[in-house]
Amino acid sequence: MTHLPGPIAPPPRLLMGPGPISAYPSVLTAMSAPLVGQYDPFMTATMTETQELYRRVWRTRNDATVLVDGTSRAGIEAVMVSLIRPGDRVLVPIFGRFGHLLAEIAERALAEVHTIETEWGQVFPDAVIEEAVERVRPTLLALVQGDTSTTMNQPLAGIGEICARHGVLFYTDATASLGGNPFEADGWGLDAATAGLQKCLGGPSGSAPVTLSDRAVEIIRSRKRIEAGIREEGDEAASDFIRSNYFDLGMILDYWGPRRLNHHTEATSMLYGARECARLLLEEGVDNVLARHERAGAAMLAGVQGLGLVVFGDVAHKMTNVVAVEIPDGVVGDAVRSDLLEDFGIEIGTSFGPLHGRVWRIGTMGYNAREDAVLTTLAALEAVLRRHGVAVPAGGGVEVATDVFRGAGEAVWTAHA
Amino acid sequence: MTHLPGPIAPPPRLLMGPGPISAYPSVLTAMSAPLVGQYDPFMTATMTETQELYRRVWRTRNDATVLVDGTSRAGIEAVMVSLIRPGDRVLVPIFGRFGHLLAEIAERALAEVHTIETEWGQVFPDAVIEEAVERVRPTLLALVQGDTSTTMNQPLAGIGEICARHGVLFYTDATASLGGNPFEADGWGLDAATAGLQKCLGGPSGSAPVTLSDRAVEIIRSRKRIEAGIREEGDEAASDFIRSNYFDLGMILDYWGPRRLNHHTEATSMLYGARECARLLLEEGVDNVLARHERAGAAMLAGVQGLGLVVFGDVAHKMTNVVAVEIPDGVVGDAVRSDLLEDFGIEIGTSFGPLHGRVWRIGTMGYNAREDAVLTTLAALEAVLRRHGVAVPAGGGVEVATDVFRGAGEAVWTAHA
Repeated sequence: MTHLPGPIAPPPRLLMGPGPISAYPSVLTAMSAPLVGQYDPFMTATMTETQELYRRVWRTRNDATVLVDGTSRAGIEAVMVSLIRPGDRVLVPIFGRFGHLLAEIAERALAEVHTIETEWGQVFPDAVIEEAVERVRPTLLALVQGDTSTTMNQPLAGIGEICARHGVLFYTDATASLGGNPFEADGWGLDAATAGLQKCLGGPSGSAPVTLSDRAVEIIRSRKRIEAGIREEGDEAASDFIRSNYFDLGMILDYWGPRRLNHHTEATSMLYGARECARLLLEEGVDNVLARHERAGAAMLAGVQGLGLVVFGDVAHKMTNVVAVEIPDGVVGDAVRSDLLEDFGIEIGTSFGPLHGRVWRIGTMGYNAREDAVLTTLAALEAVLRRHGVAVPAGGGVEVATDVFRGAGEAVWTAHA
Repeated sequence: MTHLPGPIAPPPRLLMGPGPISAYPSVLTAMSAPLVGQYDPFMTATMTETQELYRRVWRTRNDATVLVDGTSRAGIEAVMVSLIRPGDRVLVPIFGRFGHLLAEIAERALAEVHTIETEWGQVFPDAVIEEAVERVRPTLLALVQGDTSTTMNQPLAGIGEICARHGVLFYTDATASLGGNPFEADGWGLDAATAGLQKCLGGPSGSAPVTLSDRAVEIIRSRKRIEAGIREEGDEAASDFIRSNYFDLGMILDYWGPRRLNHHTEATSMLYGARECARLLLEEGVDNVLARHERAGAAMLAGVQGLGLVVFGDVAHKMTNVVAVEIPDGVVGDAVRSDLLEDFGIEIGTSFGPLHGRVWRIGTMGYNAREDAVLTTLAALEAVLRRHGVAVPAGGGVEVATDVFRGAGEAVWTAHA
């Protein structure tokens, strides 16, 4: 580079992949609000207010409801390293890529990791998880709710009771699902849950909402170690300290709590963005937002089927906000994606692992869980598929999707809690 | 909270503390640019472009120049856990709070940590560091460049040679200093350097620029472990793996490098902001920006002295961008700060540790290294000090600071490399 580039000027994009997706306009506006100081009364009030907003998003009364400054996997690692002592047994049921990620992060935290796996495109029945819990006797069960790699939405409503019966901590990552699928942190007996903004919450990646039960906080508190430099006489120091400073949720809680003990410098713009994501969700109403995701997801599902495409996986258990579509024989998946992006400014997703090259993933989430976004995507997809030699029924996708939005479409699918 | 708050509406603030400071307007604008997909050609090109911009900021040819998604201490922890094997000896010379932080993070990474300390307000002569290196024989020397807790700027120009002579990796954290004080990653023989945006770079906290020498990369590569779920046959897996997934710089480099191996989902808005911080610095010119910081810092120093206040520490070694001022006897430091904030919208900083309640810290950095910001702060400070019963010379601060900006002031202080 011999010259300097100009200010950032992204091309127009309709992001209909598995996330990140186009942020809500008011979230982008919030990102550019002026900064205030770290201990400005406005700053601390905004942090407190944001905690309360996220309690309502998570549907919890957990005092320990905060943001971790980093992407969604920062939230996952913070929970894992804060809750897991080296040698602890951790059980991870894996039904897609992000289950592997939970196992991976638990391994790095030196847990004794036990996994069970199911075929990609399926979820686990409660009984299978209970059997594994009884066999492994883990300290922690770590279970993804929605895994975008397969589009599946693992039912969680019965798992909390299983964990309670066996004295197991129950943690879920809801990055891909929160805000677009039902979630009940307290109702489902969760001890820890993590998310990100870049899926159904409709914000940019870079802030990870986390909520912790009192029981989880108690474990974290027992491993407390206040850092040298701000440690005062009388501050206890556990020998079994958490092996990360940045992800020490005890210190993060002290920073968000009334003691306001300095840890990191809160990422102010990300806080503003995270606050607006939650505020918008609650302003529209959780039930309304879920219904909007359900409708947009049903319309996209009907639409791709209307184009004659085959949907991957157990559709009865898929998330509202993403569908995996098999790439027709003879079609180069990435060439279709590239045409959609370059000629229509529309992004759909590729896939990982066993599904790589086999399916596209199409999202309808957050701001883009909208009729115009769905219909535009289906119209463009039809045009590109035809160009690539696929015999698609003219208008077939748009027509049936429109019917779904107008309430005339058959209920091909309904969301499961 | 029974009702919902409105969109974020921060009060007007002139942030003249030790950071975070008011961001450049164009950085805030960049924060609200529309998102694109994670592998959009525009996204990957923007990542590559941002790497090149930061090479010029760091003054390095290091290929391994990236952003870590988190606040500045995320960058510190990423370097520490990626470079330090459990049991490695790490030497940390401590001259303020952030030296304690480096030692703390090294301890959490299970290093054998050795520290030397100097009085707050002083820096280390090269010979003292060399003596400690010879005695401890560490794998890594971790040394803060500018420590805002004391305002000191540790000279680094001679340390690289010492480390090279003794086969020691040389790492510095330049969060508080980069962009406002000279920095030469290659010229000073650094193996690793980290920063944040929220000081002289003039952006929000939440992204940590990092640069690594080839030697540092080699060590990190030897500890490589690609996560399950995206691991392919032939991918090597080290048993001595890095104990963090999020901070595994090997994986982060693979994500930023040509392989574009999926790790986290890059925090797009923070990337845009970080890019704009670097772009602005280079557009104005590094030398010009340093001169602007030097002038604003000299003016603020002259100004507080003109108000009859006593400056803390070894002024010959202070950073350009922050000054510590002793709180006059009988004055309640926090009451003055509170009046400045509430009545004038101006923030100055409190202090940590041994300086708590003893000094205020006043910053002149990034966007706020400006004449109007300096003069406004001095005028307001004069008014508030008078209200609190301090006998301040009328106009004394503003007058001498104005002289410095007009080139008529005595050069009370010049920056050291």
